[in-house]
Amino acid sequence: MKAALSTLISTKNLPPHHCASSSSSSLSRSIWLHPKPLSPPPSFLAPIAPAKSLSSSSIGLSRSSKIHKANFSSTMASAYKPEAARVPPALPLPTPPVTKFKIGLCQLAVTVDKERNIAHARKAIEDAAAKGAQLVLLPEIWNGPYSNDSFPVYAEDIDAGGDASPSTAMLSEVSQRLKITIVGGSIAERSGDHLYNTSCVFDTDGKLLAKHRKIHLFDIDIPGKITFIESKTLTAGQSPTIVDTEVGRIGIGICYDIRFQELAMIYGARGAHLICYPGAFNMTTGPLHWELLQRARATDNQLYVATCSPARDAGAGYVAWGHSTLVGPFGEVLATTEHEEAIIIAEVDYSLLELRRTNLPLLKQRRGDLYQLVDVQRLNSQ
Amino acid sequence: MKAALSTLISTKNLPPHHCASSSSSSLSRSIWLHPKPLSPPPSFLAPIAPAKSLSSSSIGLSRSSKIHKANFSSTMASAYKPEAARVPPALPLPTPPVTKFKIGLCQLAVTVDKERNIAHARKAIEDAAAKGAQLVLLPEIWNGPYSNDSFPVYAEDIDAGGDASPSTAMLSEVSQRLKITIVGGSIAERSGDHLYNTSCVFDTDGKLLAKHRKIHLFDIDIPGKITFIESKTLTAGQSPTIVDTEVGRIGIGICYDIRFQELAMIYGARGAHLICYPGAFNMTTGPLHWELLQRARATDNQLYVATCSPARDAGAGYVAWGHSTLVGPFGEVLATTEHEEAIIIAEVDYSLLELRRTNLPLLKQRRGDLYQLVDVQRLNSQ
Repeated sequence: MKAALSTLISTKNLPPHHCASSSSSSLSRSIWLHPKPLSPPPSFLAPIAPAKSLSSSSIGLSRSSKIHKANFSSTMASAYKPEAARVPPALPLPTPPVTKFKIGLCQLAVTVDKERNIAHARKAIEDAAAKGAQLVLLPEIWNGPYSNDSFPVYAEDIDAGGDASPSTAMLSEVSQRLKITIVGGSIAERSGDHLYNTSCVFDTDGKLLAKHRKIHLFDIDIPGKITFIESKTLTAGQSPTIVDTEVGRIGIGICYDIRFQELAMIYGARGAHLICYPGAFNMTTGPLHWELLQRARATDNQLYVATCSPARDAGAGYVAWGHSTLVGPFGEVLATTEHEEAIIIAEVDYSLLELRRTNLPLLKQRRGDLYQLVDVQRLNSQ
Repeated sequence: MKAALSTLISTKNLPPHHCASSSSSSLSRSIWLHPKPLSPPPSFLAPIAPAKSLSSSSIGLSRSSKIHKANFSSTMASAYKPEAARVPPALPLPTPPVTKFKIGLCQLAVTVDKERNIAHARKAIEDAAAKGAQLVLLPEIWNGPYSNDSFPVYAEDIDAGGDASPSTAMLSEVSQRLKITIVGGSIAERSGDHLYNTSCVFDTDGKLLAKHRKIHLFDIDIPGKITFIESKTLTAGQSPTIVDTEVGRIGIGICYDIRFQELAMIYGARGAHLICYPGAFNMTTGPLHWELLQRARATDNQLYVATCSPARDAGAGYVAWGHSTLVGPFGEVLATTEHEEAIIIAEVDYSLLELRRTNLPLLKQRRGDLYQLVDVQRLNSQ
């Protein structure tokens, strides 16, 4: 390699420490860049149209506010095509229906008794609502044990509803009765021949607003620590899920989904105020990555992140890390807990979103001339 | 908004908590997805060709190893087009020339005396090399104060070299004499009418392998805390910079570049083993984000991250946070320091890259059917 490098550079007759190119090294250019001009860009990079309104008026989202208020000249920035860093271009942050509200994170102990688990979750939601929570988040897989053996046993047919899905029937009833929004953690869902790890969002009328099926299945292998192959029993979801609720626009991810920064980037570009991740990290990945990933997603995308884990049961087949947490748009941990059962009540203040995006105007500083994150389904829908 | 939601759902004659779509909510679908079929995708999404070898043989990179060794079935994963999550597809991780080596991070005190700063940096590099460092990293702006007033005064014409650039002349001399690789922090560079914040990489023969000009200028405004507008004096660089050295393939970012996760994603897809970020975070953003961002970039991209800050000078116009750090591919802090002057010597072990990518096979679990990160310059070069 060394010989090749020397040859490459010496043939240019350059002094030993001089670079052939002022914008990239001769080496890196030889790897990455052919001498053909960079413009015009490929056709898909060119037609960066203004974001469509996407029929927002029909769903009451016409109150969109501008997010670019920093006192910096945008003349230079615009040459770098910040709007092109997301394809389609990022939507403006919508004005949420409420600026401040309380969120409740119910870190529940989960047993093998499904009926008990449902009653227990109902009670926790009632407690959180009694403490003022307008949005309640439940853990991943809260109606039975987290295991490939249990998923088929505890799975429910959410689309059929009623007796076929007592867990979501409870969530619907309690959200309507208490007039709160619920991001119902997740349960195993049976749909035809498939099982999914599915989170349901209910609005204050008890309606199912959205159903997120875990997109990235938890297949990991850290020998001697943790091995789990969720894909043995489960099928992955096919869509990101973002939903307008009475407490803002919420993106949903389930546990392992949080490892994929692209999903959070998509939600950010779709105007999310908050991403909720029900999740059950374990005793290996929990201390390593649970808080880190939450704080990174919040900081990079300048939005709120809320997580909810089951409480730890050291005797369970899968031992959850716990540590349900609310993180603000500067990556600050606003509320958290240890591993025992707990109900965290904390305040979300969406006015911080605009403030932090003014402090650090990342959205207008992105280099769409160098990188672009494509939201495939939103692009295809245009 | 509520009325519109109710209408939307009730017109479908669904029970109150039932979802119209099994793969996304009726609401989210109404926002994001038109009913037209998702396939065929736009033309640029379709032709996901295998990664070109990119003339790797000519630069001695033919020892590429396979990174996908996890024991999971890839049949299902392939349906999700993990290779399409990077455009062009991610390159395989090259086999580095060395598996284990020591890195030296020189957290230097910087004064107004340029001649002293250069001599001081030379001495620190010599010390690090004497302790076994084969790669030495210097801080951002190490030959003079970090300020818009100072940049033009301390700037050097790197391309002219010699007396026009005593800082890089020293780096070239010392790297050749000690047979080490140097990522030379950054200095202000004068090129024609423009000033840049520029990092130079020297190989063991004293050759300038790469020159990275800070891509994302540091323009932030946190009132009462920190306001800095680097773009008052500096011009942004136009290219990511990644270079093959005798201690692996290294991507370069300077300070604020670390905030943009896309740059690290590009480097990961180009086969980086290590990203070096010379950086001078401050007393506000340092405690908030410095370690967080390093750990997140390392964890998400499963590679090493090394940073190097100036030592703190509480009397300076810009007070640096310090805390130069080496982070491993699990986001683990392998070595760090406080704010005083220090030389950190730590071991890098690239065998961990393959191990961690086997433990957590994120690269084969990505959903290229849902999101794609485009490396614009690499795409245009093909």
